Amino acid sequence: MKKLIALLIILSAWVTQAQNQQQEDSLTIRKLYDLSLLQGQSYPWLEHLSNKIGGRLSGSLEAQRAVEYTKAELEQLGLDRVWLQPVMVPKWTRGNPEYAYVQTQEGPSTVVNILALGGSVATPETGLRAKVIEVQGLEDLARYGRPQIEGKIVFFNRPMRADLIHTFSAYGGCVDQRYSGAAEAAKYGAAGVIVRSLSHKIDDHPHTGAMSYGDLPNNKRIPAAAISTKDADYLSGMLKLNKDLDFYYKMSCRNFEDVESYNVIGEIKGTERPDEYIVVGGHLDSWDVGDGAHDDGAGVVQSMEVLRLFREAGIRPKRTIRVVLFMNEENGLRGGNKYAEEAKMRKENHIFALESDAGGFTPRGFSIDARDSQHEKIQSWKPLFKPYLIHYFEKGGSGADISPLKNGSTVLAGLRPDSQRYFDHHHAATDTFEAVNKRELELGAATMASFIYLVDKYGFDDIQNEEEILK
Amino acid sequence: MKKLIALLIILSAWVTQAQNQQQEDSLTIRKLYDLSLLQGQSYPWLEHLSNKIGGRLSGSLEAQRAVEYTKAELEQLGLDRVWLQPVMVPKWTRGNPEYAYVQTQEGPSTVVNILALGGSVATPETGLRAKVIEVQGLEDLARYGRPQIEGKIVFFNRPMRADLIHTFSAYGGCVDQRYSGAAEAAKYGAAGVIVRSLSHKIDDHPHTGAMSYGDLPNNKRIPAAAISTKDADYLSGMLKLNKDLDFYYKMSCRNFEDVESYNVIGEIKGTERPDEYIVVGGHLDSWDVGDGAHDDGAGVVQSMEVLRLFREAGIRPKRTIRVVLFMNEENGLRGGNKYAEEAKMRKENHIFALESDAGGFTPRGFSIDARDSQHEKIQSWKPLFKPYLIHYFEKGGSGADISPLKNGSTVLAGLRPDSQRYFDHHHAATDTFEAVNKRELELGAATMASFIYLVDKYGFDDIQNEEEILK
Repeated sequence: MKKLIALLIILSAWVTQAQNQQQEDSLTIRKLYDLSLLQGQSYPWLEHLSNKIGGRLSGSLEAQRAVEYTKAELEQLGLDRVWLQPVMVPKWTRGNPEYAYVQTQEGPSTVVNILALGGSVATPETGLRAKVIEVQGLEDLARYGRPQIEGKIVFFNRPMRADLIHTFSAYGGCVDQRYSGAAEAAKYGAAGVIVRSLSHKIDDHPHTGAMSYGDLPNNKRIPAAAISTKDADYLSGMLKLNKDLDFYYKMSCRNFEDVESYNVIGEIKGTERPDEYIVVGGHLDSWDVGDGAHDDGAGVVQSMEVLRLFREAGIRPKRTIRVVLFMNEENGLRGGNKYAEEAKMRKENHIFALESDAGGFTPRGFSIDARDSQHEKIQSWKPLFKPYLIHYFEKGGSGADISPLKNGSTVLAGLRPDSQRYFDHHHAATDTFEAVNKRELELGAATMASFIYLVDKYGFDDIQNEEEILK
Repeated sequence: MKKLIALLIILSAWVTQAQNQQQEDSLTIRKLYDLSLLQGQSYPWLEHLSNKIGGRLSGSLEAQRAVEYTKAELEQLGLDRVWLQPVMVPKWTRGNPEYAYVQTQEGPSTVVNILALGGSVATPETGLRAKVIEVQGLEDLARYGRPQIEGKIVFFNRPMRADLIHTFSAYGGCVDQRYSGAAEAAKYGAAGVIVRSLSHKIDDHPHTGAMSYGDLPNNKRIPAAAISTKDADYLSGMLKLNKDLDFYYKMSCRNFEDVESYNVIGEIKGTERPDEYIVVGGHLDSWDVGDGAHDDGAGVVQSMEVLRLFREAGIRPKRTIRVVLFMNEENGLRGGNKYAEEAKMRKENHIFALESDAGGFTPRGFSIDARDSQHEKIQSWKPLFKPYLIHYFEKGGSGADISPLKNGSTVLAGLRPDSQRYFDHHHAATDTFEAVNKRELELGAATMASFIYLVDKYGFDDIQNEEEILK
């Protein structure tokens, strides 16, 4: 009987402690949201990055200004350390505005909207004019074969599927046309490629993005451009009427030698376990059209805001929390690779990394790349997020920049904002500050800070120990 | 033993049946989403309502055109019946564009952006010029009293709280200033009222909306206007420097006698229980500024789309499904009241009503006004919505137009889209077609259709029966 009473006392003390913890967590999270929504810094930071600096392609003056600006801002936050991590990045320039038109024998020419894909070679100085063959994907190339492709411009026109709820899945189902279209079409003797813009929206804005020639020798490389969805529909319609039309385009883009740039890093040293690292980040570079507010200015300022919110809320983390603003996600991932490489070299134990690189829209939750037991632990925190309408804690990919940290034990996660509007703006002139809503951005920052707070407080090592015992 | 086997057979048959039902539901819902996203009609309908017709204030030519257009479109859908339900509505016109400025003794005057509140009387023809007293809400009036208020313009400046996650709660916390500000201030001898626009966004767009003089006699009514948030901040700042500044405004709005208008109604007769009604609706009228695309063009076209999707998917509902496009939600609720009144008169048994009147943004779920048992039944359908990221099924209000149907047994619900951007557009010139995203609108329509499908299929009468047995 005495034993039972003792057990009950212990049990009740344990329950009380758990309740107290939950209440403390709930209050801390509320404080983080309040600070972000009432005295947030993410929106003015984004305004500066977007409007005062603008598009920040790797190797550009704007990218360098963004490095300097974010470093200076992080230095104002009273972090324990702020520094630059040098990294060599590719440099590509768009040159003069692209120019393209469709020409039929009988009719006048019709100007269409294109953008060179990042990394593309230029057309000849006088432009490239050729017949067009429309295909629905890389797999069509083999079907048509060299006789029907040689000397022509291959027009990749498979649209993003509208029935997929997750727009990133629709993007994933088409992006091979943009990334590898030129390399594959060149093997069949194509003169150039035009790729339907990766957007659900039918409008006049072409969407650029990275492409690669793989190991194709320089003299085999053909120019590659994105065409707006509206003009893709137009071109496709015209081809149905007249297979013999000509497409003309002119681009003066250029690849240079790699140049030096930087990841920008700031950290708050952990009080109990300074040698365990938690990373939160986004990428500082963007495409050169628009101002990169959603991709990924939002992720940059939200990540900076996480550390500021910790400071303002008076949270002293147990572990070392690092904000990393990665350089060159868009066309090389050099910053992400460099960070992981040096972390490995220094044997830094990263327990968690979180990236925000899916736009500054209303946060819905997180996509989590972790073992089942780690994922379950994270899911146990779900009720704490319910008041903020954060409901998505599913297994999946995290973020490009943090993916090189993947090692089987580090938990990786990506913020998942509402994705319906994202590809209306992605890599296009419509990715501007005005398209970001202040509250949505701030909710994202608070959601990230809350997640990091819980990871720092509870960690994952109880799970690791349990798993080791089970072995 | 035999009995046990028989029981197991029955049980397993029951489980199989439940699984089959669930699979059937899951496939039907997928079909509804596919039809909405791939061959949806809601977006072109909204384009017409917004751009070809425009703002549709009750009693206006545009409202009449909207009645005719939506009736004609419903008639194309092959419904069993489409008709107009006459209803008398108030008629108020804005008149000439409003004009207002702030004037200090020493400096030049500064023009500020205002909009007459709906129902307001005009200023004198030469405008109204007076000193200003800033207050933070109706409760401040008694504190200042007649000596400090008489002859002045009362400036209600309590802003919407930014820390509330549900923006409708922030709206609810301020809307009394707009609705009753003039009636209350007039009791203290105020000359007029200016109300801070109900928006989180700091910009130049004033947000209009309904107001009421209550039982104030005509000769005591004072003019009431909304001022943009930016100009509210400006005016408040100026008042801190100089309490003696003058505010001038001129408005020529006017109230007329009631005029006849209509609710537009269409229905599909139920195959098994034609005398049980399920209503889905939004309101056809809107404010006269902007084109009312979010409020509530979106709800109108989504509700029409629900019936079209049923037709396209080949769903023959057991119960009678009605789309009701209500007239005059904004400044009178006459359409909602009329519909409920006639339904009651005809003893029509409404088991469910769903309204979409919270914008055409990404749907998150439903707010449900129902008894616990009914709410629990609805919550049991949650897993069917998970693939569509629909997660919110909480108790709460439904929609203004369907609220007169409330009787203790009819289940009422409101679509709950993401609310973060809603008040940037609500009742302002920024409520335009361009602010509505096609996919978000279509997801909302499919979500509504799926909910209606489940309510029609399963109903609530098993619960009613259970409850009656328990009595």
